[in-house]
Amino acid sequence: MAELRFSGLGVSPGIRIGNVWGYRPGAASVASVADHIEASDVEAEWARLSSAKDQSLSELHALVEKTKETLGEEKATILAGQTSILADPMFYPEIERQIQGQLVPAERAVQNVVASIAALFESMPQEYMRERAADVRDVGNRLLTNLSGGQRVSLSDIREEVVLVADDLTPSDTVQLDKTYILGIITRVGGKTSHTAILAKSLGIPAVLGVGKQIESLQNGDTLLFDGTTGDCILHPDAATVEEYRKSMEAERGELEVLSQFTHQPAISKDGHRIEVAANIGTVAESQMSLEQGAEGIGLFRTEFLFMNATSMPTEEEQFEAYRAVAENLRDHPVVIRTLDIGGDKELSYLELPKELNPFLGYRAIRLCLDRPELLVTQLRAILRASHYGKLKVMFPMISNLDEWRAAKALYRQAQEQLTSENIPFDDAMEVGIMVEIPSAALLADLFAQEVDFFSIGTNDLVQYTVAVDRMNEKVANLYDYFHPSVLRLIKTVIDAAHARGKWVGMCGGMAGDELATPLLLGLGLDEWSMDGGSIAKIKRAVRSLDRAECEQIANSLLSIGTASEIREQLKPYLHR
Amino acid sequence: MAELRFSGLGVSPGIRIGNVWGYRPGAASVASVADHIEASDVEAEWARLSSAKDQSLSELHALVEKTKETLGEEKATILAGQTSILADPMFYPEIERQIQGQLVPAERAVQNVVASIAALFESMPQEYMRERAADVRDVGNRLLTNLSGGQRVSLSDIREEVVLVADDLTPSDTVQLDKTYILGIITRVGGKTSHTAILAKSLGIPAVLGVGKQIESLQNGDTLLFDGTTGDCILHPDAATVEEYRKSMEAERGELEVLSQFTHQPAISKDGHRIEVAANIGTVAESQMSLEQGAEGIGLFRTEFLFMNATSMPTEEEQFEAYRAVAENLRDHPVVIRTLDIGGDKELSYLELPKELNPFLGYRAIRLCLDRPELLVTQLRAILRASHYGKLKVMFPMISNLDEWRAAKALYRQAQEQLTSENIPFDDAMEVGIMVEIPSAALLADLFAQEVDFFSIGTNDLVQYTVAVDRMNEKVANLYDYFHPSVLRLIKTVIDAAHARGKWVGMCGGMAGDELATPLLLGLGLDEWSMDGGSIAKIKRAVRSLDRAECEQIANSLLSIGTASEIREQLKPYLHR
Repeated sequence: MAELRFSGLGVSPGIRIGNVWGYRPGAASVASVADHIEASDVEAEWARLSSAKDQSLSELHALVEKTKETLGEEKATILAGQTSILADPMFYPEIERQIQGQLVPAERAVQNVVASIAALFESMPQEYMRERAADVRDVGNRLLTNLSGGQRVSLSDIREEVVLVADDLTPSDTVQLDKTYILGIITRVGGKTSHTAILAKSLGIPAVLGVGKQIESLQNGDTLLFDGTTGDCILHPDAATVEEYRKSMEAERGELEVLSQFTHQPAISKDGHRIEVAANIGTVAESQMSLEQGAEGIGLFRTEFLFMNATSMPTEEEQFEAYRAVAENLRDHPVVIRTLDIGGDKELSYLELPKELNPFLGYRAIRLCLDRPELLVTQLRAILRASHYGKLKVMFPMISNLDEWRAAKALYRQAQEQLTSENIPFDDAMEVGIMVEIPSAALLADLFAQEVDFFSIGTNDLVQYTVAVDRMNEKVANLYDYFHPSVLRLIKTVIDAAHARGKWVGMCGGMAGDELATPLLLGLGLDEWSMDGGSIAKIKRAVRSLDRAECEQIANSLLSIGTASEIREQLKPYLHR
Repeated sequence: MAELRFSGLGVSPGIRIGNVWGYRPGAASVASVADHIEASDVEAEWARLSSAKDQSLSELHALVEKTKETLGEEKATILAGQTSILADPMFYPEIERQIQGQLVPAERAVQNVVASIAALFESMPQEYMRERAADVRDVGNRLLTNLSGGQRVSLSDIREEVVLVADDLTPSDTVQLDKTYILGIITRVGGKTSHTAILAKSLGIPAVLGVGKQIESLQNGDTLLFDGTTGDCILHPDAATVEEYRKSMEAERGELEVLSQFTHQPAISKDGHRIEVAANIGTVAESQMSLEQGAEGIGLFRTEFLFMNATSMPTEEEQFEAYRAVAENLRDHPVVIRTLDIGGDKELSYLELPKELNPFLGYRAIRLCLDRPELLVTQLRAILRASHYGKLKVMFPMISNLDEWRAAKALYRQAQEQLTSENIPFDDAMEVGIMVEIPSAALLADLFAQEVDFFSIGTNDLVQYTVAVDRMNEKVANLYDYFHPSVLRLIKTVIDAAHARGKWVGMCGGMAGDELATPLLLGLGLDEWSMDGGSIAKIKRAVRSLDRAECEQIANSLLSIGTASEIREQLKPYLHR
């Protein structure tokens, strides 16, 4: 058969080849049901519905527990939301009403209500609201299956290597997938921020979403080759194509082996300049893993996980335990803890945050914490207490002006004084810094450098605000580029201002883990580089291949170039020299 | 009676005193209706409902027409949305279903459906969705009134001077208000971006919204004094208070008289430096008015109105007529036309724009126009054709990098070439510039200055991105400040870079119309100041009171100051010298 090539959104990386296995959760149960029931049947129909609801709830609870174990609390909350749909006054009572008021059989009533509510969610402007439609359909399918007494096809029962092909996967489908058997996921719909994308990445299963109607060409047993990075799919690949991709797969594997030699080497340039390569982490477990990946410290410890996985504010004691565990895991390596960066699109149910039209320009991070000083003081006390057990530093996110920094620092002093008066030990020389992720902070770096102990440049947000682009928005994501010349100028401003005052500068955004940027950042004088653990060996190798003096010249010449594409071109010759 | 002081959100300026007139649209019609109807009455009830719907639709259509005449197309679309609610499959059929399925009388069915849909809208995250709840209630009240055969209290019938007090005003209430009789508006609920706020400002009626339960203290005939700027309200003001506020009112009036002397004087500093004071406009009508307000040109002509008031894309001919009319109105004064700045929160039904999570960081203005070159070329052709009839200039909004500018300029050349080959006359020396409203453009001003003819600094957006604050978001609006020292540095960067290449710089954001900023902007060397027509006389007076050489020193000393509040303090002595 001839090759058929098409593409979708590559959302989880990896090249794979395997047999198509189509998954179509059966909503066929409705077709066999009568159009109407007798008035005398209403009671019985209600009872049938009620028992299907109970069954669905208990299945969901079990699934939530299993997900907690395998994927963690955060992923489990996605499913927990489905139980609340069953409790929604728009949902279940409306099904009962259709049975009683219009004498509709339970299956059809479920189908009607699911269709209208899902359509409502789909008409909403925000992507995360539209994603709720999938949850509603998922709950509906579960109810239908339980009404018909039938068994759902369980994806966790798959015991052969397949490429899973589906119109869409619901969260409860996805969490059941076993990476040993599921080579990859191909779906008709779904975006980069969909649950399926998030879960596939977390499970390490390559995935291409949103391939559209091309999905209809895929039949069970067909051979499909695909690339979860580029989104390219090839049905019935011929021998030459398979050979070509096998080479890519082998090259990937070979590259990983070569890189592993650099994992535990220091990042020293050819002319003897050493930089610190650290990891970004979000949990205590990751702090252990980061050492195995070659991290020489933690440049960004996001503390949100403690708050997002809880149903109420974590206590000082709970926070202290987590921070101490990380400090102890890292022994004498430095750990930079970022205070709570919540709000905007990251919600906490127990904080009652406002909904916002532009959450990225809204009430989040330090803005929220300064409004609720008890929250920040509690966290600072916990961090200070943990500082006795390792080499901690602390930094405040989303600082936009000196007033905010000074207010945060005053709360820090308050926490210190409390501990002193309570005779609790802490490191009273702990360094206190700020994230530079808002243009206004970068532009005032000379003034901040007189007051802070260090800067950590968060390129992800810094680029977003400097160029006025939401990088999650597909329509404008092409404008998001940390090689934008204005971003380079801001980075230089920050590093020069810090060094003039003898302060150090770290970077914890995506740019730090990009080899192409390494000569530039080395040349600009960046002191600490923090990244996903998986990038550490790669960046160490890059630094070891470069001459710092030469990089300074490169960086200087790049600062007068006008476009990101020209800057990338100029940097390419230094890659993998 | 003792004075009672309370406050709300001042959304439309003006100090007024008058008698309270409470407005409570009667939904009392439901109370007199039975709980259930007989099955045999269903048909008659449906007919009654249907006739109330027809009556409501014809009232709404009449109101839309009247609003178009008095307030313009844009405001009328707010009401036109209500007719679509009556057509919504979630709404009307659901009322019919309750009558048939549950034998509920029409009035109660309307009340039930309105309550549940309004509650749904109110639970939504975005303010503009929540505002829809008021529309749904408005439609519901109209249906109820027509079901009961009664007459709505018509606010347009008020023929005495009153302060209108209400829980909330619906759009159809507000558009009926006559400024001659309605001294002001006080409501229990409502925010700065509510329909009521927008319409009150447009009608020139002072308003304080969101006063909360204090509204219950207000009885018909009570004397109420209030300030639509600060939001302060004083019930039963005593003689001394009234006297004090009368002084403010008279001072306001006196100030306006003094200012009027400056309207047509040139803005020349004491040491003889002249700057250009221009107006921001959005319609042809405003271009005429701006001359009476003392404008020496148009620094910003927003072209959106042509697009937003239409049901399809305006033709080149329609655009040409509008641009030519403005060019001719302004005679030999310059007019800077900004190309289409649409998208994000400004929607066009015929363009099918995507809904976005962060519209201010999204697909708008030049980003959208470069994606649809035919749209931009048509507009550029219309502007070029109009350039033959006056002194036009053109600028592109939301430019974030050189590539965008070069692409836009290429389309401009294309439009020029087309007109040349068609033998249509245009000003081939017309200046082409960019808005500087994204930090990345300001940071690259030295490179842009080599290619553009001029810059116009849009402080509203520039501050928003530089400080990462949505100024419409009440939780963080306090961080929005154009006196932020980083914003001052960006303004200086832009002006210095432009002057180094012999180019001029304008400003069309709110800062240009603020007297407190005048010494600073004069000192930094701003060439053209564009503002709301009402601020022109004030800024001319300020410039005439200042010495430019002294202002240069002031500006230089301000650039090393760290906080906006200190900068404001330093500027205060130069106000009204």
